[in-house]
This record gives sequence, C-alpha cells and structure tokens, in this order.
Amino acid sequence: MTISIVEVSPRDGLQNESTLVPTADKLALIATLVSSGVRRIEAVSFAHPKRVPQMADAEAVAAGLPRGDVSWIGLVLNERGLDRAIAAGLDEVNVVVVATDTFSQRNQGVPTSEAIAAWSRIAARARGAGLRTTVTIAAAFGCPFEGEVPVARVRSVIDRCLEAAPDELALADTIGVGVPAQVRALHAEVPGDVPLRWHFHNTRNTGYANALAAADLAGDRPTALDSSAGGIGGCPFAPNATGNIATEDLLYLLHRNGFPTGVDVGPLLPLGARLGDLLGHQVPGQLARAGLFPA
Amino acid sequence: MTISIVEVSPRDGLQNESTLVPTADKLALIATLVSSGVRRIEAVSFAHPKRVPQMADAEAVAAGLPRGDVSWIGLVLNERGLDRAIAAGLDEVNVVVVATDTFSQRNQGVPTSEAIAAWSRIAARARGAGLRTTVTIAAAFGCPFEGEVPVARVRSVIDRCLEAAPDELALADTIGVGVPAQVRALHAEVPGDVPLRWHFHNTRNTGYANALAAADLAGDRPTALDSSAGGIGGCPFAPNATGNIATEDLLYLLHRNGFPTGVDVGPLLPLGARLGDLLGHQVPGQLARAGLFPA
Repeated sequence: MTISIVEVSPRDGLQNESTLVPTADKLALIATLVSSGVRRIEAVSFAHPKRVPQMADAEAVAAGLPRGDVSWIGLVLNERGLDRAIAAGLDEVNVVVVATDTFSQRNQGVPTSEAIAAWSRIAARARGAGLRTTVTIAAAFGCPFEGEVPVARVRSVIDRCLEAAPDELALADTIGVGVPAQVRALHAEVPGDVPLRWHFHNTRNTGYANALAAADLAGDRPTALDSSAGGIGGCPFAPNATGNIATEDLLYLLHRNGFPTGVDVGPLLPLGARLGDLLGHQVPGQLARAGLFPA
Repeated sequence: MTISIVEVSPRDGLQNESTLVPTADKLALIATLVSSGVRRIEAVSFAHPKRVPQMADAEAVAAGLPRGDVSWIGLVLNERGLDRAIAAGLDEVNVVVVATDTFSQRNQGVPTSEAIAAWSRIAARARGAGLRTTVTIAAAFGCPFEGEVPVARVRSVIDRCLEAAPDELALADTIGVGVPAQVRALHAEVPGDVPLRWHFHNTRNTGYANALAAADLAGDRPTALDSSAGGIGGCPFAPNATGNIATEDLLYLLHRNGFPTGVDVGPLLPLGARLGDLLGHQVPGQLARAGLFPA
C-alpha cells in the first residue's frame, strides 16, 4: 500500500523557528521539495501575523508557488484564514480542532466545542469554493496542560468533526508523547471509509515507530503521513514540542519496510544542512548525516 | 511479556567517546544504573588497552562493582579477554562474531569463520568457569563495508554459533541501518527455544521502531534489549555508528506500549545531563529534555 507524504516543513517546520526566513528562501526550499516528487505540501498558515510572525508572508509565498502537480495546503484557524486561503488560490485547507479545552483555549482562544463549530462553517464554505478539506484533531495523544486525553474524548471530537464531512481526518500528536499502542487505539475509533492523515513529533523518540504503526494499519484506506524536511518544527504554543519527524528519515524507514511513497529521498538529503545554515542550528533529521544505506 | 533491559552505557556507551572517563565516574554511573532496577549491565570490555583505551581500566571497574542483584557482563573478543573476565569475577561474557568477513577482519583481525571458532572455544571455557554466555552477531542488519547482508548469510552464522550452545543469542544492528521488517525476517531465522537479545543503534532514527518490533515478537521467548543511558555510544570501528538507543526513551516506549521491564525511569532522567557534562556534548536521549508524560 502506498503511503502519501504531506510535507509540512514550510509551515509547521518554519513556524516554530525563532529565525524569520525570507520569502525567497521559503520558495527555494519548496522548489527542492517539489523536485523530490512530494505531491502535497502544507506551504503556509493563515494565522494572525502578530501571533505567528513566521507566516506573515503567507500571501507572498502562495503567489510564488509553482502550480500544477502539487496540491498546496494552507493551515486555517478561522473564517478569516479561509478567506485568505481562497484568495491565495490554495488547493486544500487544514483546520485544527484541539481535543482538549485548555489547549484549544490557548491555541485558538475558544473551547473545543466552539472550534468544532468554526470547523463546520469553514468546511461548508471551503467545499463551496472548491477546496479540499482536512480537519486535524490536535493533542489527540496527550495534552501539555490536561495530561492524558481519554480515547473516548478523542472519539467524541472525531464524531462531531466528521459531521462536516471532511475529505480527510488527521490525528496529531502535537506534543510528541504518543506511542504505537495509541495509534492502534485511535485508528480503531475512525470509521473505515474516512481517509486518514497522521501528524507525529519525535519529541520523545517515538515518532518514527508511530509513523510505521500508522502505515502498518493503512491497508486499503488512503493514508497520509505528515513530515518535515530535516525534522524542523514544532508548535510555538506547546512546551517542548520540538521536532516533526524528518521526511528523509521517514522515507528511509517506509521504503525499507516495503511502503512505497513516490518520493525520492535524494533531493532531500542536502536540505538538512541548508536548513541548518538558514536556521542557525543543526536539524534533528539523522539520515543526511549518517548517509543512505546501502551507500 | 516482560522485556529485559541490558544496560550497555558503561561499555558500548563510553567506549565510543573521545573523552576518557575516570574509573570513579564510571562507578558512579553504574551505581545510578543499579538504583533504577536494571539487573543486567555490560560494564566493561576486555579489549587491548591500546586499541580501546576507554576500557583500559576494566579490571579496576570490575573490582568496584557492587555484587549481588546484578548480573555483570564483560565484552570479550578472544581467549585472553575471557581469562581477564574470569579473573575479574564477572557473571557473563558477551562474545562478538561479525556477520561479514570484511568488518570481522577490521574489528577482530580475522574472518567470520575464525571468529566463530574462537567463540566456540570461549563458550566451552566460559561455561566450565560458571559464566553465562551470549554470542552477538554484529552487522546482522547491514555492513559498512559490504553493504546489504543477506539473511541467508546471517542464518548461516547463527547456526554455526548455536553449535556452541550459548545461553543467549544477540542480533546487533551495529551501524544503525536496520528496520522492523528486518527484525521480523531475522527473528524468523532463530530457533524458538533460543533466548534472544537485540542491539539497536538509532543512527537513522529507526532504532526505537526496531526495539518495539522485537518486543512485539517476544511472546514467551526470553527477550532482552540493549540500551544505553542517554543514548551515548557507538562503535569506534564503524563509520557514523553513533548512538545506541537511550534507555530512558526505550523505557518510555515500552512501558506505554504495555511491556513491563522492572526498571524505573526516574533515576535515569538526570543521567543524561550528567553524562553530557562528563563527555562534553549533549547526549542524544530526548526524554530527559522533553520530560515524562504525564508529567
């Protein structure tokens, strides 16, 4: 079964970095990503520029995206964000609903129920505008403020989000606490006809095992994995949520386990060092330093 | 099913560090490891001190070990090493046989067949002296010089090593290239009545997924996983083989997946920072920095 890669370095990757990356450097990064064969890229977030200054140039980035083979995704937190995503000509919107009220309040200023209501309004309007929709259940594996999140709570949020008929449901381990047993438990709660997407962080070295567990469960269900070139990124509002899983390391793991992705790891290998120079620190991805095997 | 932890930081961990750690610091590290409840510790290597200067104080370390609950393991490369392990009063010896001739020649100066013959002589003498024996098949998942190692080649080495009736067989991903599909393929080659031990490096971010795959396969078979506090270590003769899997990160993964180990992660959390100070660089283990969950 093919696993789709959703490359999130231009959005979730850069969003958590203290360095403000110039638009031209973002577009150069994106060009390399496109050359690897990845066909879904989360390129920007339409958040308030004062709250997420790294994404203040979202419209400029969107204007520079090469249109054609790639489905371009924008993260959207409210209807104002949707307006911007439509105006910018994106192909998909990804809408976040945090599974716990405390984290939802800190992230979006509203409890989970209001975030679900906002998602429903966004979904209807996005569909009307011809955009594909993903709803991401954030903190599905644990909350930095409330701790363990009961599966029943996540299930309830999933059910309410599915009422708005997303094209895809994403389950996010926003703070990198999840383990494969949770991947299996949450997978069992999602109706079999819903395309799934998973978002893992490697904060406690469980991210790659989680990704492989999700791939093992995919079967015939359309399944996507978020990853970030170099493993850059995190969430600025979640303590210690550093490190998406690195695309190149994920590809190594998936390909050698017999899961094709259609993405070529070659163009991604030099990216880690380039991103390290750009951001002023070594990136967490390890394949580029260790080298492909066999060489 | 309980998974046993074999703590290898005093041996495989420190052996690959450029810093020579004083004997007293090694014994302080070991005391903390013992306090965590780990009951098998690979404490020293009896290699030639010119070749592995970090282990030149093996006898002094052995003399300082607290005897009683813990089974103390010494790595042994030849009969001279066995003599030293017996004299030092260790409980177990771990003997390395490299699966490929090129790497065996570089590591021990002999091809694989001669390493197997040496292992057989060591096994007989060790058993006679009352020591438990492990034979470790190194480079079982790939070789830095020969590349892919066919499963049939590993199987042949396993079969010849089992003729000397080890108490345990270990399969080592010495250079950190393995993936869970290989764990399953190699597991299928080991007769069901042989206690298994696995040694993974996280060089390409596959080590924890491999460890969990091995735990998932354990069933009723006695199964041990090597790990190193802080994730320190590697192999000085294998390029880029940095990073054992970190004991504290492994415990987080195993415990939250329902595999008890009998080891308490608490005493290990402060070790990463202490080892970082001792060795002059940040250690790769991530749990201590990110924090336990739930907190």
